[in-house]
Amino acid sequence: MKIIEVRVDQIHFISDMVRDGEFHSHPGKPHDAKQPMLTIVCDNGIEGHYVGPMVKGVIEGGCSQVLIGEDPLFRERIYRRLLQYQRLQTELNERTLCAIDCALWDIAGKAAGLPVYKLLGAYRDTVPCYGSIMVGDDIKGGLDTPEAYAEYALKLVKQGYKAIKLHTWMPPIIPEPSVDMDLEACKAVREAVGPNIPLMLDPYHYYSREEALRLARGLEKLDFLWLEEPMDEHSASSYKYLTENTKLQICGPETAEGKYMTRADWIRFGSASIGRAGALTCGGLTSLIKCLHLYEANGMSVEMHGNHIANLHLLGATGIDGKYFERGLLHPMLDYEVPKPWFTANYDKMNENGDVIIPQGPGLGYEFNWDYIKNNIVK
Amino acid sequence: MKIIEVRVDQIHFISDMVRDGEFHSHPGKPHDAKQPMLTIVCDNGIEGHYVGPMVKGVIEGGCSQVLIGEDPLFRERIYRRLLQYQRLQTELNERTLCAIDCALWDIAGKAAGLPVYKLLGAYRDTVPCYGSIMVGDDIKGGLDTPEAYAEYALKLVKQGYKAIKLHTWMPPIIPEPSVDMDLEACKAVREAVGPNIPLMLDPYHYYSREEALRLARGLEKLDFLWLEEPMDEHSASSYKYLTENTKLQICGPETAEGKYMTRADWIRFGSASIGRAGALTCGGLTSLIKCLHLYEANGMSVEMHGNHIANLHLLGATGIDGKYFERGLLHPMLDYEVPKPWFTANYDKMNENGDVIIPQGPGLGYEFNWDYIKNNIVK
Repeated sequence: MKIIEVRVDQIHFISDMVRDGEFHSHPGKPHDAKQPMLTIVCDNGIEGHYVGPMVKGVIEGGCSQVLIGEDPLFRERIYRRLLQYQRLQTELNERTLCAIDCALWDIAGKAAGLPVYKLLGAYRDTVPCYGSIMVGDDIKGGLDTPEAYAEYALKLVKQGYKAIKLHTWMPPIIPEPSVDMDLEACKAVREAVGPNIPLMLDPYHYYSREEALRLARGLEKLDFLWLEEPMDEHSASSYKYLTENTKLQICGPETAEGKYMTRADWIRFGSASIGRAGALTCGGLTSLIKCLHLYEANGMSVEMHGNHIANLHLLGATGIDGKYFERGLLHPMLDYEVPKPWFTANYDKMNENGDVIIPQGPGLGYEFNWDYIKNNIVK
Repeated sequence: MKIIEVRVDQIHFISDMVRDGEFHSHPGKPHDAKQPMLTIVCDNGIEGHYVGPMVKGVIEGGCSQVLIGEDPLFRERIYRRLLQYQRLQTELNERTLCAIDCALWDIAGKAAGLPVYKLLGAYRDTVPCYGSIMVGDDIKGGLDTPEAYAEYALKLVKQGYKAIKLHTWMPPIIPEPSVDMDLEACKAVREAVGPNIPLMLDPYHYYSREEALRLARGLEKLDFLWLEEPMDEHSASSYKYLTENTKLQICGPETAEGKYMTRADWIRFGSASIGRAGALTCGGLTSLIKCLHLYEANGMSVEMHGNHIANLHLLGATGIDGKYFERGLLHPMLDYEVPKPWFTANYDKMNENGDVIIPQGPGLGYEFNWDYIKNNIVK
């Protein structure tokens, strides 16, 4: 089997999401937008697909030099060549590496006639999830007050979510992030959902050590399950300080570069009590598996970052504590259950127990709306 | 897909190997022997096979309760159930766990129509190897003197081996192990093969710290590549002492229980400079992958223990330094190239470059002599 074509199509759609000045998403006015979709074509007719953020130029440019003519089942060889390319050509960022790697896993699953989690060695067909509430905003009817969070969190619990995570307010929505405002939102949510729903917080990411510690101690009292990324993750020392000075579980790293190697160093430093990793920020499933195994070897749990399809397959293939799929981001004014137009169905379907079902189709198991895609490729 | 039968057959053969009082192998008088072979049968007709040491009773007993009716692609779920079973029923030793896990990987590869290393994500089709010379003996024409080692090592190099490992003399062959004798054999081999052949030593396993250090310092002078397991591996502190006090690379742990978790602790303690793992002592490929990823995350190389078919597939799927397949054990009076009677060909064929070819058949890629097997199953 050989790769003969690598192509990134742009699919036109009407988006109801806008990005703010810190790249966080919020509901917004409908507008034209483009969704990149990677296709890797093999000489036997198998095509691997991936939909997500990626840099089209570097894939169709330098990366295609590595890919064309290569056996797509040689994922480890391709991955290591791309890692070396990534050192100087940083347009090949983790999410672009993720795109390529996931499309190769899609090919492998299709070649084997198996969903990816069964290639890996399955553990379960469904995984618990939490509802992950979008970053705070200043929209009436949105997430503009502690009460708005409380009301929405309760609604999600009634919909079947068994755990909830908040993202709170950050610039440019508010000029100055505030530990007090964060704690008010967390307190309101705890009071609304009662004592038995696990709660987590993902706040502003550039607090000082002292602010982060005050936030953590406030969350201890509200019986939160974990706190993630309240400080710049490039300082593993700061996370060690925070982890040592609170009883709250600190979960990380999420966005720090360095994949499994950074995580090995965080473990050695004692910088977090729960590990964190995700396909998008770790450069794909091949790297994510290594993160998982690292945590398992060290007896640590790991929580997956983001609602990524590769995270879902990995969670289907592990029995270590690291139990939640992050479902969302959710917002009172958006319907998460409506699939994007390039899909006929979401890949992270929730069942009546509030668990997410691992996709069962061969490969990654996307359910594509090919008519929509074909009719909306931007020429 | 469901497992419907789990069976351990005993294949009769004439063995020319005997075990000494420390369970080390030597050439011996031909005698009747039995080779266990595990077969796991699925309801769709796929059969997974594994040949190697295993405890028949515990597989056909307790383990079959876990296996029968289970989907064989749920390796991680099966593995975690067996780990729990292993805690009290220690007849389910690592090599027996390995047997079950490898047979499941054989099924997965056959279901996918792919060799295991391509399921994992391949890196290469061949791997470098070293010739691993058997434990010393007192046989005329065998491995009874430093000169015998030197002569045999040189013969192996002429046969195409690019690196050589020695196992030296241990009780009951000699009453007292001797660092001096070890160093004499190593010196004779170094002089015979010249300065450009990497050499390694696996000596007696219960030296004191002082003896191990004296051995290591002697090997430094002979420019050896590594030393493995000169002391009881249950003392990670002793290995830290040894690693810190020599410039020689210390490779381990090999036989210490605890799979990837023990290895994570050794890394944290700084107990070795090169990691070590193998399917047989780590409980199979599922666990071995975790060991590999742990070492990779920590930026360490890892050397595979033993000539196991799962080691070969894993080496085919990794690009980290951990470069050698251990081919052997080799002895001047035995022909390693003659396959065991239950095979039509060895799975670790060496090519003209002195590298070993990863098996290309679906699953583990054994080449069985079914006629011999069928005619020699012990009733």
